[in-house]
Amino acid sequence: MTHTETSVKMVLDRWYASIKSCDNIISNLSDELMQKEIAPGKNRGAYLLGHLIAVHDDMLVLLDMGEKLYPELSEPFIKSPDKAASHIPSVSELRGFWANQNEVMKQKNDQLSTEEWFEKHTAVSAEDFANEPHRNKLNIIITRTSHLQYHTGQLVLLK
Amino acid sequence: MTHTETSVKMVLDRWYASIKSCDNIISNLSDELMQKEIAPGKNRGAYLLGHLIAVHDDMLVLLDMGEKLYPELSEPFIKSPDKAASHIPSVSELRGFWANQNEVMKQKNDQLSTEEWFEKHTAVSAEDFANEPHRNKLNIIITRTSHLQYHTGQLVLLK
Repeated sequence: MTHTETSVKMVLDRWYASIKSCDNIISNLSDELMQKEIAPGKNRGAYLLGHLIAVHDDMLVLLDMGEKLYPELSEPFIKSPDKAASHIPSVSELRGFWANQNEVMKQKNDQLSTEEWFEKHTAVSAEDFANEPHRNKLNIIITRTSHLQYHTGQLVLLK
Repeated sequence: MTHTETSVKMVLDRWYASIKSCDNIISNLSDELMQKEIAPGKNRGAYLLGHLIAVHDDMLVLLDMGEKLYPELSEPFIKSPDKAASHIPSVSELRGFWANQNEVMKQKNDQLSTEEWFEKHTAVSAEDFANEPHRNKLNIIITRTSHLQYHTGQLVLLK
């Protein structure tokens, strides 16, 4: 295994371990608990779950893997703060989106070669990428793993 | 820049950005706020800061970079839950440890070559490492970045 292959493995392993850790926490929280705030006056669990799905949906676009699965989640869960949107999906619906999205992303990730992970993501121009080769697809996984862990540390407070 | 060099850069950049993000949050919280629980019945800010310093101190050992700077923090901040230890350092002392540790780690990280980041860390045997080359020093940075982000998502709740 080359160092480059090892790097891709380490980054993807960390992503999947983070998804699993978040999934374990969510799976052990009732729909009722997911409707509670993680701390007084802060975001509700359901909002954080919707937010994670919406952000991961953006990853599909950044990784040039096709269209978002749930484009309707961007408005209530990224552009709006919690409790601002007039209607959001039920916790049960969000759980279904989350599970399906994780499967779809796994399938798409599996299709990329080591070399392709080092290609530019869709939000950087070819000119900028020439000077900044770290703005690649693998870096999208690295930064979103951080984001996922940040919110997992909040969701766990509902236990 | 080779893909391997780019990988090391991406991982270290994410680590330092995570340290900075956590540092910004802590710097904007008074000592009094740091003594509060992040949510009712959960860990206090000061405990989380001590916990991060103790875990990062372990990294120095895992990365074969020498001795721990603050070995006395392992007992109250890793082996014990919050409020169990009879004496813990003041928030002001912890802030000093945190700042110094970040400087020391930066200096030591800067001394490692790309190749050295792919050498085994100290908690894996040479035999196991031969079959599991991902158990290297760079992976210590990857996993501890996740850990840092997890607790940063909790510290931010004190704002």
